[in-house]
Amino acid sequence: MDRSIMVKWINEGNVSIPIRLIQDYKKLGLNESEVMLLIHFHSFIQRGNSFPTPQLIASQMSLSETECLSVLQSLLKRGFLELTEQSDENNIFYEAFTLSPLWDKLVTLALEENLEETTQDNYEEEQ
Amino acid sequence: MDRSIMVKWINEGNVSIPIRLIQDYKKLGLNESEVMLLIHFHSFIQRGNSFPTPQLIASQMSLSETECLSVLQSLLKRGFLELTEQSDENNIFYEAFTLSPLWDKLVTLALEENLEETTQDNYEEEQ
Amino acid sequence: MDRSIMVKWINEGNVSIPIRLIQDYKKLGLNESEVMLLIHFHSFIQRGNSFPTPQLIASQMSLSETECLSVLQSLLKRGFLELTEQSDENNIFYEAFTLSPLWDKLVTLALEENLEETTQDNYEEEQ
Amino acid sequence: MDRSIMVKWINEGNVSIPIRLIQDYKKLGLNESEVMLLIHFHSFIQRGNSFPTPQLIASQMSLSETECLSVLQSLLKRGFLELTEQSDENNIFYEAFTLSPLWDKLVTLALEENLEETTQDNYEEEQ
Repeated sequence: MDRSIMVKWINEGNVSIPIRLIQDYKKLGLNESEVMLLIHFHSFIQRGNSFPTPQLIASQMSLSETECLSVLQSLLKRGFLELTEQSDENNIFYEAFTLSPLWDKLVTLALEENLEETTQDNYEEEQ
Repeated sequence: MDRSIMVKWINEGNVSIPIRLIQDYKKLGLNESEVMLLIHFHSFIQRGNSFPTPQLIASQMSLSETECLSVLQSLLKRGFLELTEQSDENNIFYEAFTLSPLWDKLVTLALEENLEETTQDNYEEEQ
Repeated sequence: MDRSIMVKWINEGNVSIPIRLIQDYKKLGLNESEVMLLIHFHSFIQRGNSFPTPQLIASQMSLSETECLSVLQSLLKRGFLELTEQSDENNIFYEAFTLSPLWDKLVTLALEENLEETTQDNYEEEQ
Repeated sequence: MDRSIMVKWINEGNVSIPIRLIQDYKKLGLNESEVMLLIHFHSFIQRGNSFPTPQLIASQMSLSETECLSVLQSLLKRGFLELTEQSDENNIFYEAFTLSPLWDKLVTLALEENLEETTQDNYEEEQ
């Protein structure tokens, strides 16, 4: 084993995932297969590929391609992932997946929990 | 909504996960529940808590506590996670989970694949 | 070289830094020595050490200890970093550095730029 | 302020930097301006842009464009950064910056320090 394999590892890099996604996916009604599928999308989008094919993602999951597509459709329908149409500088249209709906749900949850804490604090202070 | 909630979000931070774990967990024989349990451990260890209780982790997963413990035991037995005994500067012993066995398996896989590619390249060059 | 050194590297891990800090520190009036000092603090805080000594940080910077302290004091004074008093579950007080003021400035900047874009868009649509 | 600005922030994302780079850049003979320039490159490369123009990077640094180019040339000459020629699937050539030489220096340092520790341990055990 020489150093080059280690350099290759470092170049392949890491994906940064908000702690809140790890902590709160269950509260959003997601199970482990669903959140992992979202993490696969996140990992591609972060590296500049915003349209990974479902086949590619299925190949990295323990689900069959059919199961994977069915999870994907369910996530799109329940509003955790969205397929949008974008245009580049030459006005060429292309499709891109975005996790914005997922982040919006997580932020909404964080806001609600923050509100509860504040209300709780005010209540306790008043006693 | 004021800025403080956003500052709180940023302070909670992110967890960095090697791309290789996302890409290759299936090749290591892990399913989505198993890799998510490992990601939960990773997330705690990275933030300086190397002994998160299984109860705490179960509370963040869609599995029941019993199912979660059973997955955890399976991962320990199959050598993806290890419970080690550490000692601090005052020679007080404490238990700590480590993901070293998981990283070792991933690195071994990367080495094997690299070897195959190199052999393939040599073969093609010789033709 | 064996695999253990690579496993050690992975265990040491990564620090996640908001892209916005890298892109916008200049707009906040920070130079490279200043932003690196903040990144050192961020790196310790993320790993659960919220009171790294200035000596420790100086040892990892190309500045002398005196220069490092002077940069630190300037950052505290200009409101990029704050020293707060926290209490743990046993009501023991301890000091902790927080980067909240830095994130607040970055968020404020993001909000202002977003406002400008929106105003610009509205203006263009009206033409 | 609405949630959309927070979602935008999350989509912009984070850059993952090896802890070792933060801890050890001084040992490699780099100062803060130099390591920040390398972090700018790393941030673009991780997001799929491996040829950010020096002008773009200079615009995000407190250095002038001339100073920035001079730091860049020094880093290329001292072997911390490399400009390589790559070809895509259609055999079109393009230039790409790589930080491989930097990672190689960091890995070499980690190996040397590991060797020293081991030698030290053996020595102490023999006493």
